[in-house]
Amino acid sequence: MRTVEWHNNRVRLVDQRQIPWELAFVDLDNYKAVATAITDMIVRGAPAIGATAAFGLALAAHESQTATLPDLIEDLQKAAHVLKAARPTAVNLAWAVDRLLDIATSGEFNHPDDLRAVLLQEAQRIADEDVAINRQMGAHGAQLIHEGDTVLHHCNTGALATVDYGTALGVIRAAYEQNKHFHILLDETRPRLQGSRLSAWELERLGVSYDILPDTAAGYYMQNGEIKLVLVGADRIAANGDVANKIGTYQIAVLAKENGIPFYTVAPTSTIDLSLATGADIPIEQRDKMEVLAPYGHPIAPEHFHARNPAFDITPHRYLSGIITENGIARPPFENSLRLAVEGEQL
Amino acid sequence: MRTVEWHNNRVRLVDQRQIPWELAFVDLDNYKAVATAITDMIVRGAPAIGATAAFGLALAAHESQTATLPDLIEDLQKAAHVLKAARPTAVNLAWAVDRLLDIATSGEFNHPDDLRAVLLQEAQRIADEDVAINRQMGAHGAQLIHEGDTVLHHCNTGALATVDYGTALGVIRAAYEQNKHFHILLDETRPRLQGSRLSAWELERLGVSYDILPDTAAGYYMQNGEIKLVLVGADRIAANGDVANKIGTYQIAVLAKENGIPFYTVAPTSTIDLSLATGADIPIEQRDKMEVLAPYGHPIAPEHFHARNPAFDITPHRYLSGIITENGIARPPFENSLRLAVEGEQL
Repeated sequence: MRTVEWHNNRVRLVDQRQIPWELAFVDLDNYKAVATAITDMIVRGAPAIGATAAFGLALAAHESQTATLPDLIEDLQKAAHVLKAARPTAVNLAWAVDRLLDIATSGEFNHPDDLRAVLLQEAQRIADEDVAINRQMGAHGAQLIHEGDTVLHHCNTGALATVDYGTALGVIRAAYEQNKHFHILLDETRPRLQGSRLSAWELERLGVSYDILPDTAAGYYMQNGEIKLVLVGADRIAANGDVANKIGTYQIAVLAKENGIPFYTVAPTSTIDLSLATGADIPIEQRDKMEVLAPYGHPIAPEHFHARNPAFDITPHRYLSGIITENGIARPPFENSLRLAVEGEQL
Repeated sequence: MRTVEWHNNRVRLVDQRQIPWELAFVDLDNYKAVATAITDMIVRGAPAIGATAAFGLALAAHESQTATLPDLIEDLQKAAHVLKAARPTAVNLAWAVDRLLDIATSGEFNHPDDLRAVLLQEAQRIADEDVAINRQMGAHGAQLIHEGDTVLHHCNTGALATVDYGTALGVIRAAYEQNKHFHILLDETRPRLQGSRLSAWELERLGVSYDILPDTAAGYYMQNGEIKLVLVGADRIAANGDVANKIGTYQIAVLAKENGIPFYTVAPTSTIDLSLATGADIPIEQRDKMEVLAPYGHPIAPEHFHARNPAFDITPHRYLSGIITENGIARPPFENSLRLAVEGEQL
């Protein structure tokens, strides 16, 4: 099962709003609907929205009725703009769209239909690569999980956050496939509860031992010595190793350092944005306050109450023990190790 | 309006499970129902459950049909045991019950009805003192809030957590009554959402400027420099200044220290337990996982999913800038300052 795939000339997504209650799919027949699905978080997770946007641009190529290549490229650039604007923080979205746009503007094609076919192939390649990359990260990271460990995890970074397998949860899955015994503590991850809804659902299906925690309790289990390792994902990583990830990650990183617990982020090199020197330049999405006041339609406070809802935060690189990529584990100083990882060197 | 009061020979409580939707009251005519109301968190907040338990014991004295003083004292001791067992962490509960029991066993009474009357008077005195003490803490603490500050607050520590006025929210209220301009950020405080439901409701009524935050976002607003001060309550304070308070407090204290932000707890001296050398000996209540999986009856994950629900944590004294009591602000070293505060000296 894939979180995102091309199906009957449409983009098929797992509807993540329905999990854990139901495994349902939505089929999207136009790129604007794909952009909306990303904004509304029918699909979420940096690698998953990257692959979704790639299929979305391939879909835009099929939607465009133009007979000439320049007209098609113009339509693609419009669609790329809409898709990239769907969410601002995760760089994988722009990375995937640009990878297809670069092909479209390479001058290698004579006929629109050739380009249409190649764009779809490339989107499929991004999706297939994502699964392979996740397995590579899993292999690199699994060595960090030891027999009997309790590992803290934030948000969802599993098959649902990627095309399949997962980043941080992929590392956990790899350790599980190696028959290691360990326990996972899942931050519920307010406001959208990706931990309780998505990660717990995935670990239930895999059979991995876990407990959901209120986000308020992570420090308690660090302080009492139970947590031995923290694994999280990433939405964008600056050249110096500063990490944008789901709101709450920064707090966990500070607490891990205070308690002497290794803290790793797990992310493909497509999440690394070497154009940004530090995390200060990463845009932080601010979402609707109703996600806080009425999660999934269940009001916890009247809608005229005031609330804020920043979707991500920045963890400064000094809190990180390492960044697990498909090319190995990047260690400080990250300026060097991340550049090598992006260049494809094995760390 | 009082959170707890004696009304027509019953204990009347604001039903805090109904707020912010409705201001409703429950009238309890037996001490076992009072204990259950404490366990079920119809009433919560260390000072409020202290006063409630005192009224509960006065109610037990009225319930007891015995004609002799020894029999009445025996019934009171049974009731005291039940009331004290209602919740383990906040020491105010045992403190208030013991204050009445000490009177009962003082040997100063000849007739059960005399004792019944005096116990009710003493419970009323505890309630009245609580309001006065809160105003004193407010006066001491308000000096810490400066014009234009943003202050972070966790859980609920307002009129609802006390008999009236509040501890940490009482400080905020005092500063507001001094016409200071400031903004409050309220941690929503999962799992029971005391911030979004109770504290926001109180600040709405007072007219204080606030925003609710997911608990995951507190660090974000510390890191970006907005939060200038943290104010929380306490459920029990050990002799060395270690503080038991609502789960999530420890995390905030660590983050405040990391970001150079003053962190104060606000608590009456009845919350200080000099019999415990450190916080390691404070019992931490573990509550039902369904508070995490289905807050207020709205499921966020299937009930067979696994979850943990520790209700409190311990903040080591090294993270505290000070402890605001009715006798002034206790500063490190807390062994000295807390003992003086408990002895009634003005700090």
